[in-house]
Amino acid sequence: MAIPGMSRLIATAALTLPLLTIPHQSAAAPHSAGAVQSGSPSGGPALSSVIPAPVAVRPDPRATFRLGALTVIRTQPGSDAARSVGDLIARELRPATGFGLPVLPVAPRAVPTISLLLGARDYRLGDEGYRLTVSPTSVTIRANKAAGLFAGTRTLLQLLPAEIDSPRVVRRVWTVAGGDIVDYPRFAYRGAMLDEARHFHTPSEVKAYIDEIGRFKVNYLHLHLSDDQGWRIQIDSWPRLTSVSGGAGTGVDGEGPGFLTKAQYKDIVAYAAKRYVTIVPEIDMPGHVNAAQVAYPSLTCDGVAPAPRTDTEVGYSSLCIGSDTTYRFVEDVIRELAAITPGPYIHIGGDEAQATSDADYIAFQQRVLPLVAKYSKTAYGWNEIAKAPAASTAVAQFWGTGTTEPDLAAAVTTGTKVVMSPANKAYLDMKYNPSTPLGQDWAALIEVRDAYGWDPATRVAGVGENAVLGVEAPLWSETLRTLDDIEFMAFPRLPAIAELGWSPRSTHDWDSFAARLGTYGPRWTQQGVNFYPSPQIAWS
Amino acid sequence: MAIPGMSRLIATAALTLPLLTIPHQSAAAPHSAGAVQSGSPSGGPALSSVIPAPVAVRPDPRATFRLGALTVIRTQPGSDAARSVGDLIARELRPATGFGLPVLPVAPRAVPTISLLLGARDYRLGDEGYRLTVSPTSVTIRANKAAGLFAGTRTLLQLLPAEIDSPRVVRRVWTVAGGDIVDYPRFAYRGAMLDEARHFHTPSEVKAYIDEIGRFKVNYLHLHLSDDQGWRIQIDSWPRLTSVSGGAGTGVDGEGPGFLTKAQYKDIVAYAAKRYVTIVPEIDMPGHVNAAQVAYPSLTCDGVAPAPRTDTEVGYSSLCIGSDTTYRFVEDVIRELAAITPGPYIHIGGDEAQATSDADYIAFQQRVLPLVAKYSKTAYGWNEIAKAPAASTAVAQFWGTGTTEPDLAAAVTTGTKVVMSPANKAYLDMKYNPSTPLGQDWAALIEVRDAYGWDPATRVAGVGENAVLGVEAPLWSETLRTLDDIEFMAFPRLPAIAELGWSPRSTHDWDSFAARLGTYGPRWTQQGVNFYPSPQIAWS
Repeated sequence: MAIPGMSRLIATAALTLPLLTIPHQSAAAPHSAGAVQSGSPSGGPALSSVIPAPVAVRPDPRATFRLGALTVIRTQPGSDAARSVGDLIARELRPATGFGLPVLPVAPRAVPTISLLLGARDYRLGDEGYRLTVSPTSVTIRANKAAGLFAGTRTLLQLLPAEIDSPRVVRRVWTVAGGDIVDYPRFAYRGAMLDEARHFHTPSEVKAYIDEIGRFKVNYLHLHLSDDQGWRIQIDSWPRLTSVSGGAGTGVDGEGPGFLTKAQYKDIVAYAAKRYVTIVPEIDMPGHVNAAQVAYPSLTCDGVAPAPRTDTEVGYSSLCIGSDTTYRFVEDVIRELAAITPGPYIHIGGDEAQATSDADYIAFQQRVLPLVAKYSKTAYGWNEIAKAPAASTAVAQFWGTGTTEPDLAAAVTTGTKVVMSPANKAYLDMKYNPSTPLGQDWAALIEVRDAYGWDPATRVAGVGENAVLGVEAPLWSETLRTLDDIEFMAFPRLPAIAELGWSPRSTHDWDSFAARLGTYGPRWTQQGVNFYPSPQIAWS
Repeated sequence: MAIPGMSRLIATAALTLPLLTIPHQSAAAPHSAGAVQSGSPSGGPALSSVIPAPVAVRPDPRATFRLGALTVIRTQPGSDAARSVGDLIARELRPATGFGLPVLPVAPRAVPTISLLLGARDYRLGDEGYRLTVSPTSVTIRANKAAGLFAGTRTLLQLLPAEIDSPRVVRRVWTVAGGDIVDYPRFAYRGAMLDEARHFHTPSEVKAYIDEIGRFKVNYLHLHLSDDQGWRIQIDSWPRLTSVSGGAGTGVDGEGPGFLTKAQYKDIVAYAAKRYVTIVPEIDMPGHVNAAQVAYPSLTCDGVAPAPRTDTEVGYSSLCIGSDTTYRFVEDVIRELAAITPGPYIHIGGDEAQATSDADYIAFQQRVLPLVAKYSKTAYGWNEIAKAPAASTAVAQFWGTGTTEPDLAAAVTTGTKVVMSPANKAYLDMKYNPSTPLGQDWAALIEVRDAYGWDPATRVAGVGENAVLGVEAPLWSETLRTLDDIEFMAFPRLPAIAELGWSPRSTHDWDSFAARLGTYGPRWTQQGVNFYPSPQIAWS
């Protein structure tokens, strides 16, 4: 098949390569010996090195692919979503390789090709699964949906040498180990959470975190947008929330000011969506509302504004349960949030409402849970919401440290789905060991092996595989300010939680995980990610 | 907006109306009093009469829509699937109304319109839900996916007068009660099953049943294609299955011969798919295999062909568990079935294997369950498969009569999903009462109220809402030969099971269901469906 314009495409590719001259790719091309990664005959990572572990891996040592200056990326004709995934992986591969990597709807004959194709027609793959096949002349990712193509490109990045994450061109041979991978997630929800309230993190920091968690096929980012110390999202009908409680002096120690305008929030939502990460906004209530009450004293029962709080106490504030103003406020907030949130969930918090009586708490949730449905969203809250009968259509996030939670187990029998975030396993703000400079230790000290060593489907009595929607790794930021702080606490524990959410239980094996994680150190170094070099891991 | 060709469309519509002259539609057009259904001011069914009961119904008595000669059907531009649903509902509405009902991508201004539109952007609706809004000038169905548009058209059919199902033109006013419906299913799987093995039912009978069950938003049809008495599906690699065991003399009493060629099967699959019904093929094993062993004695352990059986005993046949031939046979059958089955499930039976030891049974399923996955399908079997550890990724169909099933409850904790078909509630071949001329009574006598009076999520201990994939109403055909026989046993009990599968638990109410069912009698009469006029129902 003759492709019109192919010579022009090759010329274009060559023009984008000012920094180096690359010989025509062929199996016989001499390896640049000094640049080849040691320990791997193909010069790149083994097919079995992927995190989270895939469902099935079949290496073929004779089928190594070599990414070269002539390589093109072909995406499913007629699919804008596939094209968008192709554009993204091309942008990710160009800086380190210096190759042009044109993204085309049709591959020229005899040119090495990375193909992103829909129509896998394999039900097991679901919406997020993929098949990746590496041959000497092609890398083919097939999926039912574009989300699966994206997941396949995350795997492809891990199959290239660590230098692929360099921001500058690296002269080396870029190989991908040969063989096949079939992969799809165990659970639909694999989440991370950032606490924007205790210290505000900027849109660019949030976007960096989205890229970092997306590498491990995490597909939800939960943003904790309000708490006693601050309110971090613009609400037009209640403007003092941000003008008073999002400004200077808010946050823990008065040092975490800031809030997201709706435009910034929508920009984050769109950025995340391109990377198949769905944003889950949380407004915590009926507790954790001091900042809202500072801005609007009418949200208290006595109408008196409380003092702003910059300490880290919890459990002292409550919305006024019997007041109509409360529900006007709640509905306004849910309506405005729902309007800028294309994802399915609105998280309404519900934790640590010690200043609300049990009867009031249930009365509150019985009114508020249906309000979320009124705006076409699924309600999501911390596991305390399971006390309310209306929670049967909701998602409850388990954050306890024990193995029983009777209200939650009862709610599960009526249909409540559970996201597992046991604080002594999945809370990324817990210290690794007593001398970790950041974080807290009230739930546990959590080394990497602790974060990895549990099963989401057997953690809580009565909450089995079918009840588990997935897992989430929350990161509370009482002690965290910068992206460096966030990264130090998240990595390498976040990949452990991500693997528990994605990989089949049958692949669960600490030695395997530790070995794979060890190869990730050079990647984080290339990416500039400030990870904790756990002594439990043999970092390569 | 001027629509080019509109006058031609109207002319076309008029040309299709040779049997009657219809005045231009207007709110003031005189009702044809004799034809108006009594008891309803709008001349048609109430918005609350739908089976299965919708999630939410909000009638608006001032908003009655009138279907008329000028009505057009508009479908989502650019969506072939929406267009296909539009074509189907148009074909269903034309015979009784005599209206042209052109299907267009754009509605002309000021013409009464039935719109089928995608982009509902409401997560609660899922893939199968819809919103239906009836105003004096329009009926609008909005959904996320075309399956939801189809479900909305099933509701629309029920909102038109019963005469809409007449095969001949009826002179009457065709109204749709005004208001809104929001609707989506409780469970993803609402099934019916036909036993093709005991007596073969022809492709045209199967298609008629697909239409009849689809009216109640049933979305799976399970075909029991093999049993001791016959083999009913062409398998190229084992041709004697059908040439010997699908031919003359097979079936109960030797009177149910026949089998589906692959072409016929694929035609049924395609016909069903147009109606959003997915075919689930079942090959029963390791028991219920006498017909296969008659055709191939190598499937027995001693190599001796058993006698053909035309009685209704069960539990005497078994594949030879230790033989490689068995697994070659099973894999061939699964591979060939998977290749012609686009749906997700292959049902491998697994019931009543009394001629197989427990150890052999588990050994067999541990080999066969993964074979289904090898061909990219999800394994599905009767609840006995829960004994095998490999069933954690499978669907198990509960067919017991009790409220405990420990193996099943244990499997559920590891992820097995359950389809509920309790034989004493959901088996449509059970007699209604001792004098019912057809059917059996080993599990129970099942009147309509019995079929309706249970909850899929609390029927079996340890199998709660999250573990239930859905419900299915099986119809075994030891005593059934004709479509009339099938219909007499299925209606009116199948709608009861369908409502248990679709409608929210909060709508469950016998008096409401009985009243709605009573209005369905005239529809079945119009459709020529041979239903059982249960004395529990006040038929209108």
